[in-house]
Amino acid sequence: MRARRIVLAQRPVGLPRQEDFATEVIDLPPLADGQVAVESLYLSVDPYMRNRMGAPAGPGPAQELGAPVAGGVIGRVAESRSDTWAVGDVVLGSYGWQTAAVLPEGAVRAVDVHGLPLTTALGVLGSTGVTGYFGMREVGRPAPGQTVVVSAAAGAVGLVASQVARILGARVIGVAGSEAKCLYLKSQARIASAMDYHGSGFPEALAAQCPDGVDVYFDNVGGFVSRTVRGHLAMGARIVVCGQIAEYNGERPDAEETPIPTLLLHRGATMQGFMVMQYADRAAEARAQLAEWIRQGQLSYEETIADGFDQTVDAFRSLFAGANLGKLLVRVGG
Amino acid sequence: MRARRIVLAQRPVGLPRQEDFATEVIDLPPLADGQVAVESLYLSVDPYMRNRMGAPAGPGPAQELGAPVAGGVIGRVAESRSDTWAVGDVVLGSYGWQTAAVLPEGAVRAVDVHGLPLTTALGVLGSTGVTGYFGMREVGRPAPGQTVVVSAAAGAVGLVASQVARILGARVIGVAGSEAKCLYLKSQARIASAMDYHGSGFPEALAAQCPDGVDVYFDNVGGFVSRTVRGHLAMGARIVVCGQIAEYNGERPDAEETPIPTLLLHRGATMQGFMVMQYADRAAEARAQLAEWIRQGQLSYEETIADGFDQTVDAFRSLFAGANLGKLLVRVGG
Repeated sequence: MRARRIVLAQRPVGLPRQEDFATEVIDLPPLADGQVAVESLYLSVDPYMRNRMGAPAGPGPAQELGAPVAGGVIGRVAESRSDTWAVGDVVLGSYGWQTAAVLPEGAVRAVDVHGLPLTTALGVLGSTGVTGYFGMREVGRPAPGQTVVVSAAAGAVGLVASQVARILGARVIGVAGSEAKCLYLKSQARIASAMDYHGSGFPEALAAQCPDGVDVYFDNVGGFVSRTVRGHLAMGARIVVCGQIAEYNGERPDAEETPIPTLLLHRGATMQGFMVMQYADRAAEARAQLAEWIRQGQLSYEETIADGFDQTVDAFRSLFAGANLGKLLVRVGG
Repeated sequence: MRARRIVLAQRPVGLPRQEDFATEVIDLPPLADGQVAVESLYLSVDPYMRNRMGAPAGPGPAQELGAPVAGGVIGRVAESRSDTWAVGDVVLGSYGWQTAAVLPEGAVRAVDVHGLPLTTALGVLGSTGVTGYFGMREVGRPAPGQTVVVSAAAGAVGLVASQVARILGARVIGVAGSEAKCLYLKSQARIASAMDYHGSGFPEALAAQCPDGVDVYFDNVGGFVSRTVRGHLAMGARIVVCGQIAEYNGERPDAEETPIPTLLLHRGATMQGFMVMQYADRAAEARAQLAEWIRQGQLSYEETIADGFDQTVDAFRSLFAGANLGKLLVRVGG
């Protein structure tokens, strides 16, 4: 059985380029006892992957050079020498950008989508959805009536975080990268306000929406957007640092900003780096709640699906241009 | 009745200078019903005062130009038209750098020193002690065996915070500004390790003491010391930002440092600005516990007392040179 895989050929400087990656064709090894061969159906491409590709390393072990880019995959068992999995079973793995892989039976788990489409296992019910859920519910913890700002609000994590805050009773302001996303956030995600940070009037628009300050800032982006929001922290504010997509590609902090420790001291505020792995043992609880909210019509989700394994690198690169609404996936095959 | 007072004449740029202040002699007004005249015995000088003198404003309202510098005072009631206070009562006020003041009876409270010397009401049992207590116990929350670093560990807040962490079972590393302070910290405060940040080997010495990373960093200083400590955060670390004395006088952040949000994200770490006013309703609990630890010989405290009201500005300025061991006070009169 043959497979294609996309490996990290060199560490990107700034925005990832095609030449930072290489596609290889390999022969998969024959199965040993307790192993399965999985054919990929959908791959995940996520901003955090960029963080792992650079130096210094991000959270967890850095992406190895010459190895397939790691990440979530939905696949189908094509061969099995396992008592756990039968041919045809649909499973979730984390073997990354490969069209197929031979894996120990414990390296995949059953897909649990509560009757929703299969792709949600990598999206609203996958690690991005669970991140938005726990990041907002457990770290952001908005009280009813509080003002919550979410950056990259129309992205995979942000869209969940924004709506969780709205469901918890907060007044939610989404920051996104286009007017179309802002319209979506207001009409479909039904949050109070949304604004395009590209607009020259963004700082003023934000200030106008936060007359009493920002109680919770769910930060997916860093950079200019976050500096602007940090200028409006209410006393006792909480900042959930969930992603820093603007920084991953080398944008540097503005030396004129009030230093963050001083700002937090002045505001009695908290900034917490959020890692979903800290809530790994509660992921099923999040998936069940998110699925229930979807069934009740309280939570909208979106997926942007790129078609074909060869599109993987372009899809990944498009994340940094904000091309996706909701979760970005690559469909590998049928 | 006449009084002298020290007012803020202009906003300091960098380190405060004598000419930023002016001493005035005023006639106190006659007492109205419900008022008391208080003669100052001891004044507090604290780093946070510098923060309130600059622009932009720090926490709470900024120090007004032309007004006495605000801060804690131990005084004695010299005249009373109050049913609450009798002449001779020793009270605690917050009217700042004045030799005497006429105040409403509700603007002072009884001194509560649990049999300890009167001056502790502004020190280990005053707001600096309560800050160190709650900042470490409620925000730092070290578990037994965890590694805790405290900057300005021999200062008023740091000395309490360091020992609270040691009493809670943590391994405490103090960072201070002289070898004498380090000796004190090891021999009297009985913490595991102490190091002088002036030494060229400070970063290496710190690294050697934190092989498993820093679980809690209690930050009183900011600047170079804090950047060094932040390079060693353990996963899930907590940073208590209690003061930023290095930043108050205009030291700017190092643009080459990993941005703080990114660092917190990589470490799943939390940085919280601590304001003791958030624990105002529990101050009596802190004072009782601190006094008990002192009686049991578990907690050492120190005071550095400058003699005479005319020494107030010099005493204040000396804070930024690290002249004090423990709490710095000014004795106003007998």
